[in-house]
Amino acid sequence: MTDKKWIYAFGNGEADGDGKQKVLLGGKGAGLAEMTNLGLPVPPGFTVSTEACAFFFKNNEQWPPGLEAEFDRALVVLEQRAKKTFGDRKVPLLVSVRSGAAASMPGMMDTILNLGLNDETVLGLAEQSGNPWFAWDSYRRFVQMFGDVVLGIHYTRFHRAQEDKFGQKPVSELSVEDLQALVAAFQKVIVDSGQKFPQDPAEQLRVSVNAVFASYNTHRARYYRKSNGIAEDSGTAVNVQAMVFGNMGDDSGTGVAFTRDPKSGKNGLFGEWLPNAQGEDVVAGTRTPLPLNGNSDREGRRLEDALPEAYHQLADLVARLEVHFRDMQDIEFTIEKGQLWLLQTRTGKRSPFAAVQIVVDLVTEGVINKEEALRRVEPAKLELVMRPVISPGAKKKVIAKGLDASPGAATGRVVFDSAECQEYYDRDEPTILVRLETSPEDIQGMTIAAGILTARGGQTSHAAVVARGMGRPAVVGCTELHVDYSRQLFYAGDTVVRKGDWITIDGATGEVMEGKVDMLAPQTGSGSMAELLGWADERARLKVRANADTGRDAKRARELGAVGIGLCRTEHMFFQPDALRAIRRMILADDPKSRQLALNEILPIQREMFKELFVEMEGLPVTIRLLDPPLHEFLPDREEDVAEVAAQLGVSVQALLARLEALEEANPRLGHRGVRVGITAPEVYRTQTRAIFEAACELARDGVQVVPEVMIPLVALPAELERMRNLVVETAEAVIGEYGARNPGSRMTPIRYTVGTMIELPRACLLADQVAEHADFFSFGTNDLTQTVYGFSRDDMGKFFPPYQREGLLVHSPLAVFDIEGVGQLVQMATERGRSTKRTLKVGVCGEHGGDPQGVGFFHKIGLDYVSCSPFRVPVARLAAAHAALGLL
Amino acid sequence: MTDKKWIYAFGNGEADGDGKQKVLLGGKGAGLAEMTNLGLPVPPGFTVSTEACAFFFKNNEQWPPGLEAEFDRALVVLEQRAKKTFGDRKVPLLVSVRSGAAASMPGMMDTILNLGLNDETVLGLAEQSGNPWFAWDSYRRFVQMFGDVVLGIHYTRFHRAQEDKFGQKPVSELSVEDLQALVAAFQKVIVDSGQKFPQDPAEQLRVSVNAVFASYNTHRARYYRKSNGIAEDSGTAVNVQAMVFGNMGDDSGTGVAFTRDPKSGKNGLFGEWLPNAQGEDVVAGTRTPLPLNGNSDREGRRLEDALPEAYHQLADLVARLEVHFRDMQDIEFTIEKGQLWLLQTRTGKRSPFAAVQIVVDLVTEGVINKEEALRRVEPAKLELVMRPVISPGAKKKVIAKGLDASPGAATGRVVFDSAECQEYYDRDEPTILVRLETSPEDIQGMTIAAGILTARGGQTSHAAVVARGMGRPAVVGCTELHVDYSRQLFYAGDTVVRKGDWITIDGATGEVMEGKVDMLAPQTGSGSMAELLGWADERARLKVRANADTGRDAKRARELGAVGIGLCRTEHMFFQPDALRAIRRMILADDPKSRQLALNEILPIQREMFKELFVEMEGLPVTIRLLDPPLHEFLPDREEDVAEVAAQLGVSVQALLARLEALEEANPRLGHRGVRVGITAPEVYRTQTRAIFEAACELARDGVQVVPEVMIPLVALPAELERMRNLVVETAEAVIGEYGARNPGSRMTPIRYTVGTMIELPRACLLADQVAEHADFFSFGTNDLTQTVYGFSRDDMGKFFPPYQREGLLVHSPLAVFDIEGVGQLVQMATERGRSTKRTLKVGVCGEHGGDPQGVGFFHKIGLDYVSCSPFRVPVARLAAAHAALGLL
Repeated sequence: MTDKKWIYAFGNGEADGDGKQKVLLGGKGAGLAEMTNLGLPVPPGFTVSTEACAFFFKNNEQWPPGLEAEFDRALVVLEQRAKKTFGDRKVPLLVSVRSGAAASMPGMMDTILNLGLNDETVLGLAEQSGNPWFAWDSYRRFVQMFGDVVLGIHYTRFHRAQEDKFGQKPVSELSVEDLQALVAAFQKVIVDSGQKFPQDPAEQLRVSVNAVFASYNTHRARYYRKSNGIAEDSGTAVNVQAMVFGNMGDDSGTGVAFTRDPKSGKNGLFGEWLPNAQGEDVVAGTRTPLPLNGNSDREGRRLEDALPEAYHQLADLVARLEVHFRDMQDIEFTIEKGQLWLLQTRTGKRSPFAAVQIVVDLVTEGVINKEEALRRVEPAKLELVMRPVISPGAKKKVIAKGLDASPGAATGRVVFDSAECQEYYDRDEPTILVRLETSPEDIQGMTIAAGILTARGGQTSHAAVVARGMGRPAVVGCTELHVDYSRQLFYAGDTVVRKGDWITIDGATGEVMEGKVDMLAPQTGSGSMAELLGWADERARLKVRANADTGRDAKRARELGAVGIGLCRTEHMFFQPDALRAIRRMILADDPKSRQLALNEILPIQREMFKELFVEMEGLPVTIRLLDPPLHEFLPDREEDVAEVAAQLGVSVQALLARLEALEEANPRLGHRGVRVGITAPEVYRTQTRAIFEAACELARDGVQVVPEVMIPLVALPAELERMRNLVVETAEAVIGEYGARNPGSRMTPIRYTVGTMIELPRACLLADQVAEHADFFSFGTNDLTQTVYGFSRDDMGKFFPPYQREGLLVHSPLAVFDIEGVGQLVQMATERGRSTKRTLKVGVCGEHGGDPQGVGFFHKIGLDYVSCSPFRVPVARLAAAHAALGLL
Repeated sequence: MTDKKWIYAFGNGEADGDGKQKVLLGGKGAGLAEMTNLGLPVPPGFTVSTEACAFFFKNNEQWPPGLEAEFDRALVVLEQRAKKTFGDRKVPLLVSVRSGAAASMPGMMDTILNLGLNDETVLGLAEQSGNPWFAWDSYRRFVQMFGDVVLGIHYTRFHRAQEDKFGQKPVSELSVEDLQALVAAFQKVIVDSGQKFPQDPAEQLRVSVNAVFASYNTHRARYYRKSNGIAEDSGTAVNVQAMVFGNMGDDSGTGVAFTRDPKSGKNGLFGEWLPNAQGEDVVAGTRTPLPLNGNSDREGRRLEDALPEAYHQLADLVARLEVHFRDMQDIEFTIEKGQLWLLQTRTGKRSPFAAVQIVVDLVTEGVINKEEALRRVEPAKLELVMRPVISPGAKKKVIAKGLDASPGAATGRVVFDSAECQEYYDRDEPTILVRLETSPEDIQGMTIAAGILTARGGQTSHAAVVARGMGRPAVVGCTELHVDYSRQLFYAGDTVVRKGDWITIDGATGEVMEGKVDMLAPQTGSGSMAELLGWADERARLKVRANADTGRDAKRARELGAVGIGLCRTEHMFFQPDALRAIRRMILADDPKSRQLALNEILPIQREMFKELFVEMEGLPVTIRLLDPPLHEFLPDREEDVAEVAAQLGVSVQALLARLEALEEANPRLGHRGVRVGITAPEVYRTQTRAIFEAACELARDGVQVVPEVMIPLVALPAELERMRNLVVETAEAVIGEYGARNPGSRMTPIRYTVGTMIELPRACLLADQVAEHADFFSFGTNDLTQTVYGFSRDDMGKFFPPYQREGLLVHSPLAVFDIEGVGQLVQMATERGRSTKRTLKVGVCGEHGGDPQGVGFFHKIGLDYVSCSPFRVPVARLAAAHAALGLL
């Protein structure tokens, strides 16, 4: 144990570690080591390993034996490399302390700068730099940061102390004496809070290292890890690094550079900087940054013009880093008196759209191969590429305009913090989280808000970076907003928007609009996406179909690459006004003859609807589910409609009410629906089947290839399916026979239809071998199956799911993320048993889990033939199918 | 094929077959062969085997090759034995033709008598018998029976023809000429219906044999077999037998004898007869029969007195038959001019009560052993032994009195046919089926009616026999009733009772009462039952517990032999008025403190209730299920109650309505209930646990041995149980600690408690290995499990279950008869997986299936430890457990 190495130094072109040691050194530490090894200008420093952190938690917050001594030695090496001495009154070494786990985690403590300053070393710094203002400003920053980040004193208390002394006056306008007074005031804030500001730099450092360790285990950080699927066992590393200063005058500055545009993916240096500033000023968004070059839409003095030499060096180094890491990089840099220093490099976060563009470009540029490109894009993110946009002709009242930080439009009720966000979320209402600026405290709210709006900060501010990573629409730096937390409102010009009011934001334009605004379904994605998905299809074994009910949906699905319709819900066809009147008459009819008369009116309407669907899907299979909901769904459910509907149908209100009462159900989800309707009212299924096959025959006569797959829902007994299969086959053969007889000369394209069942009840899974005797295909309805396996209903889970999630009993709703552990057992069992009876049984999934990557991975593994999901998740499913084939899921 | 034997003759002390060949010869044929072999007086005849019937159905209603010739030969033998010739004008042979399958089937065609009569042979019969009246009466009967039974002409058409000629005049008062006219009228009925009455006896016989075959396959017969679990593959045999005549004068008669009383089981000849009558007159109940001897409560001239010689011969032969068959026999006999003939013997149907008495007596008499006694009683019948009786002090208005045909009291709405019965049944309303007399057509209605009432017929009439077999309460031969089918009402004295009116019948007294009458829970059964169940317990491996919620129920359960409480539902404890007010306050409370205050009021109430339970079950385990229903069940559900409750609780109506709306659920069965309440409102479970252990500690201090088993319902996630287990254990230990501290000196009986879970969701079954980590026991809640596996709700299945049953998709509700095929798979899987984690896991069942013999057999087979059912099914379960151990289930 004692000879274990806990610390890895870097500096002056030499590093103990390297870029591959992310688990041991954290992402930041590994990046610093790698950059040092590459000979890039990196301030010297050292990394305390994640293993030390893990020891710290396991051993009651004690450092491991040996770390103390190693730490002291590392500090000496650092002093030598930096040619400064820690705590020295003349040439004091100042350091930054930063956390850095293996996976990036906005929930954790980030950075303490200027550590090493105290009432004495500040004088040395002033003298050495010849800039007392800079020295006292650095000290002021350090005291506040230490109090806030290390000691946990809320930053507003420092703001208040500053306001008490200097009102709204910017720090840049304060004198050296003012800054000295501010340092004293900040130290008093710390003392007043019952804590102390350590004057000893060694103690400052030790306390800070422990605080970084501890920040790994806060509630917020744990929540972030859980909701992002990050393992709990690793800890965070701590990076101690010699300070370089971007705030030493006009030849200094600090900034963030991306090798490609993180929103569009466009190749070329992109970024922002602040002259005479420290890094925190950029990230926190407290000052509005300037563009690096012409690639930004931000206005102001470009680094390219202000410090051309440093700019060109940056452009050169950054390009080398991208080539080295074979991916778009996000780099933090500081220029100290004209000298460029790189403080961090990491794979850059990017919008889902940019993610696709970048990997496709990297393939074109020959940097990576297609498989690597597929690997690098997370399937779920593709859904976000196609986020909704504001309708071009929509009536909208723009009340403010900020930065277009994360694309997509969102509508929701205004909330001002995470707790309020959660309240609305529990009630299933979308929210827009409005903040002056966001901080890691807001992560929980950002995770569940529909959109994010901040008054401050740039394209690389916390809000912008996190929102893009989540794929959440965001408008940031909207300086026209005046946010008043205490009164729970904001002003935008002469508009007052209060908590709970509806607003709409457009992350693609930066517009903030009053109320709800019409949105347009997203487009099918760029050419890059189509290209990437083409590569995906080459690798995937699982086919991807779409759930679509109309010709329009089917068209969209085909454009998005669906190779069939996996689920056409026919209920909507009964809601067409004429059909609705007819089905209501049918439900109210007393004798079979009137029922059939009513159904006869529905037949031609449905036939036309099926024709539209078949035409769009020519040559591809179309799975049509016969009526699933209970009949009472077609009757009015509001008292005020009853009289109107009764009049329409020519029956008495009493008769209609009586029928309504007879049809009422205590648990409609477990009620008289699905095949149960088919068994008790076979004329309904017969009419639907007739409509399907009349449509198919009419098209087949014209040479259109139609592949109908008739699906019977909610089967629990093999005999149910047997009976309905007979009904479908008899009806289909009768219709085909009639068309043949009517068109004796014509040669009809043959209609190869199949009959199968939706497997959505546990019993059908358990008896799948018997069910398969009557089925050409199985399609798992994982929504209903999940609900019966868990014994909850989607409609009611809102009552207990949020507390379950808060208590950590469930991370995701099993309706959103497929439950492999439970429901998966039945799906696998049913597939195996079904195929044991019928080797050729086609098996798919048509619940929304067909578009859930975790589900897709499982469905691939157990050998299903296809998944079917809503059209907009088709790209997700196609990529997930490829990931599954590549063994990534 | 051609040398197969299709016909088995019997007569004159010789028979081709014997009593063991029930499958081949049917029950009746085998009995006739056996009696012949025993040398008893049986008219000669022959049996066409069931194999011939099976061939008939498989080959388009053709006789098998060879049967024709064999049939002719058998007829010749019969003629020789009877010394009469078929179709002979002088000494014509007349035969009866009767169906007889392996299992008795009231749904089938029964008997044709006097076959062989025609316009010529009737003259021979008149001359030979010297009794023209008898000959023409016999011919009259034959023509009517042939028309009705063979040709399917409704018997009312013959009645009408008779009424048209002779009004209400009894046949016995008609002259020979009248009878001749009646025969002509009946023949005209047949011709008018488009059919013909064959004069050729050979054709009469052939047509009749085919009609018997065909009757095996009617809808009614198939329905009976399905609902009685009789296999479909065997056919019926046909018995052709020389006629003997009970209608040849006062020294003739016919009757039915039982070797023991079929109602009480009392040993001794019991039965009824009709002088100068044919057998059909007894069975059909068209004349009211007389007693055989003093054992009957029926009044009139006894056979013992009327024909003492025949009576004593009968008593002697009948006793021999019981000894031979080692069971109570039901014998049909005819006395022709003083000569006794036995026409049938079979194991006698008996009331469930008598069934128990008889086997226990037979064991005492040394005829059978205990195991045989257990085998002979069907477990499900034991429930009927304890059928409800009218409360001794109940207010009742008796409107008529009939025969006490089948014990038990029943209340229901009056209906007059099976179809009406079904209509009410579909709406879940009990009915009393009222008929003049019943016939096989009424079987369907009798199966589902709560009780049966007929105006005609005796203790051995169709109605009485069938009702006793089904264990359905019945009053028959209630001659005071005047039933008018056409007006759908009956008169009883000056009372008019219409279709849909409520009446109550008492099958133990024969009373018919107006409206609903208070009933008393049945008693615990006779000493015989306790004796039989004692033998059952010796053989059974499965333990039997009861579901009981109160001390009173627990007492009853223990009396009935339950060895523990398998399910105490605690919800009723919240409905005690003070507790209900408190729980409502809790539900409406906004802060945890007021919630706890409300719960504190509930605590002592529940503690006392648990004490009552524990005291009754001293030394036995008591499984207590923590709260299961959703909280909204404790709030008023009717609009008119809301204001009252709001006032009671001191909240505004709006506040109460708002809470009601917030708690409303679309699918309460899949809603916020069970452990979900425990997770989201842990204070409720904590309070219940505290009440349980305070009760246990108080009793333990007094030396009472208490064995509480705390059960968590509706678990879907292992983590749910883990958390609730911790809560229960912490609370229990705290309470036990407090009591220990408060009573430092006393030595408390140790409380060995366990914590387990109700397994009632498919997911808990699938993950049972993980669930078992946190459970000491599993108890399957098969009600909820069946509902989630099938995806239906008990509350709603009424909408589609009746058509499913009618269509033959389901025979029994899976809630009544355990679904081994589907749900059983999950129960077995969960048991195996649970025990793979924890070898000692105790596993039971606490749904009503714990009292379903089919379920019990399965639960035994897969190795469960116990079943638990409602107290009145405990005897059923105990006997079923023995049957299971004997390999009978």
